[in-house]
Amino acid sequence: MSGAAASDGAAPGPTDGTDGTDSTDDDLHARVLLTRVIEPGDEIGGRWVREHGVREVARRLRDGPPLPGVSAQRWAGLRARAERAEPVRDLAAARAAGVRFVPPGTGEWPGPLDDLGDARPLGLWLRGRPSLRIWALRSVALVGARACTPYGAHMAADLAAGLAERGWVVVSGGAYGIDGAAHRGALGAGGATVAVLACGVDRPYPRGHTALLTRIADQGLVVGELPPGDHPTPARFILRNRVIAALTRGTVVVEAACRSGSLVTARAAQRLGRHTMAVPGPATSALSAGAHELLRGDAVLVTDAAEIVEQVGEMGELAPVRRGPVLPRDLLEPAARRVLAALPAHRAAAAGEIARGAQTTEDDAIARLYELRALGHVERHGDGWKLTRESTTPVGAGRDPR
Amino acid sequence: MSGAAASDGAAPGPTDGTDGTDSTDDDLHARVLLTRVIEPGDEIGGRWVREHGVREVARRLRDGPPLPGVSAQRWAGLRARAERAEPVRDLAAARAAGVRFVPPGTGEWPGPLDDLGDARPLGLWLRGRPSLRIWALRSVALVGARACTPYGAHMAADLAAGLAERGWVVVSGGAYGIDGAAHRGALGAGGATVAVLACGVDRPYPRGHTALLTRIADQGLVVGELPPGDHPTPARFILRNRVIAALTRGTVVVEAACRSGSLVTARAAQRLGRHTMAVPGPATSALSAGAHELLRGDAVLVTDAAEIVEQVGEMGELAPVRRGPVLPRDLLEPAARRVLAALPAHRAAAAGEIARGAQTTEDDAIARLYELRALGHVERHGDGWKLTRESTTPVGAGRDPR
Repeated sequence: MSGAAASDGAAPGPTDGTDGTDSTDDDLHARVLLTRVIEPGDEIGGRWVREHGVREVARRLRDGPPLPGVSAQRWAGLRARAERAEPVRDLAAARAAGVRFVPPGTGEWPGPLDDLGDARPLGLWLRGRPSLRIWALRSVALVGARACTPYGAHMAADLAAGLAERGWVVVSGGAYGIDGAAHRGALGAGGATVAVLACGVDRPYPRGHTALLTRIADQGLVVGELPPGDHPTPARFILRNRVIAALTRGTVVVEAACRSGSLVTARAAQRLGRHTMAVPGPATSALSAGAHELLRGDAVLVTDAAEIVEQVGEMGELAPVRRGPVLPRDLLEPAARRVLAALPAHRAAAAGEIARGAQTTEDDAIARLYELRALGHVERHGDGWKLTRESTTPVGAGRDPR
Repeated sequence: MSGAAASDGAAPGPTDGTDGTDSTDDDLHARVLLTRVIEPGDEIGGRWVREHGVREVARRLRDGPPLPGVSAQRWAGLRARAERAEPVRDLAAARAAGVRFVPPGTGEWPGPLDDLGDARPLGLWLRGRPSLRIWALRSVALVGARACTPYGAHMAADLAAGLAERGWVVVSGGAYGIDGAAHRGALGAGGATVAVLACGVDRPYPRGHTALLTRIADQGLVVGELPPGDHPTPARFILRNRVIAALTRGTVVVEAACRSGSLVTARAAQRLGRHTMAVPGPATSALSAGAHELLRGDAVLVTDAAEIVEQVGEMGELAPVRRGPVLPRDLLEPAARRVLAALPAHRAAAAGEIARGAQTTEDDAIARLYELRALGHVERHGDGWKLTRESTTPVGAGRDPR
């Protein structure tokens, strides 16, 4: 397709690869520019990118004729945004803040996000060591009310810790209430957690979670589709939820009032064919009414981490054990390979001990251990980590479980 | 079939009518005798009655040869019970205590109990004015733990009051905890309630509920399949639950631990094709674990009376309004007809006013009003009662909505 672009000059085909991935710095800069111009979840912008390619859309926004079907007023608005965009500076600022940009289709891109179609993010900004692609393989979203009850906060922390202990990654939105309790529960159990923000990932929001988000970036991942410095808006909060839903194997609503944003996440998960779950609460609690509404529909009632894993793990939980060969060690990244090599042959070891053996920090070791867990090499046993039978048995040609 | 009985004398066909109903005093006495001999829910005893008729089974138990397929030891045990049975005295004692005996197939027998097959009660003993058959048409079971939490008791009372206000009859087991709260909730809303006991209905059990059960008998119905004076046993409690499940349109488990007897009722309801519902509670509450177990299966989550009616009312709730003609007034019993005649033409009236108009007690008026509600003649409006449009419109030939 590329190279065979239409010759009328008005609507050339994608110039940056048939699958929409970027192959040059120009492509990358064009894409980063678009993250400043096109709002998250804008399906029209997504269609432009799919039909014309990022470079052509960026070129038009800078000095070309409007794209077909867009009003003059809207086009002027988009152009004004494009004029102020400075992708090269954005990328440099991100790099300086330890933030990387992951375009769709590249190595660290989580494939499940493609289920969003034209509403898929233009790219993700990431703070943290682990591979988002691999972590997303075994991840569950825990979401809920900001103004939650002590019961809701307890349940979120408890479920998150239980998921972490079973080797699952806890994804949430970094907000007060249920989100924060979920992140803290995972971190407190030495587990893996991902915060998906509705603003630039260099910008701690809410402010009161600055320390928590820094800790998540150290021990896990802070993710967002908005460029550095960008601020959250009500619409962005809502649209962020589709990323949480698409990224994970299932969404658990812990506590939510009717019309809560968490229900948006749950319904997005449902539409995307992900598992939807909810935690029951007193019928007298307005903050459980949203969860109960879901449970009167297709959501599954869950009361502990084992019940969540029973749902999301149907395919994946036992899969690495049942499917045979795991990803061969020599296909692992060097950092993960070093951590794997540091695990004792026949017993469980604590993350600290493994980190010392792999000559890295404990946070880095934990990040790698959850990757290795997602790939079927290791298992969590209480507070320690152990090689799986599959990893200790030499195998022939393996295949990527994705 | 009757009269065409097998001639070998060993296994004659039923001699008391092809449908198993009793047509003579002998039949009635034989059946009452059997309620002392055969335990509730004994399907073998039920099969004997179906195959041989009550008179033949009673005759054999008194002085005939054993029925085929029963061990000598068991037969001796049954005979010993039969020897001590005094059906004529039982009926007289019952009558003196204001208790009536309702055999299957007779006017007041609730047809849905026949769904129990050979485990259907041999008969029911009733204390109270209303017609059980008619009340059962629009009834819901509220069941749950004896040692319930304040939350559970609140929910039971609240749901019962809400059901009563919507013209539904609340059925429960008369026990402490959820059962008691449900009965009281219905009574407190001037509503209709039925207690199904696991002992003789003249014997208040539990003792602490003597006053409550007396009030239920005054304002509603106390029902049981055991003859006067008989005592409850653990097995009888469990088997009583099948009657609650079969009698009602649906069963709601309000609060129940795992392995609770209420789950037996819910599962019986499920097997019988009745609606099964449960009230959620905190995931941390052991007394909601049983309800949550049901909700992870096929039970529907309910948090208020409207949601219960949405389930059980699918067919019946709107049916009297939509199906056209209600049971014609001249087919009503005289007591119900008098109450119906006392309702004002174009406005709602309180039960007390209607009772005065019908020259009866308020309790009796309420009993009749719930019958009339089940038959589509009246509706509850807040604290008052009003004629339905159907009842005020003269109709031609009606038909029994059953």
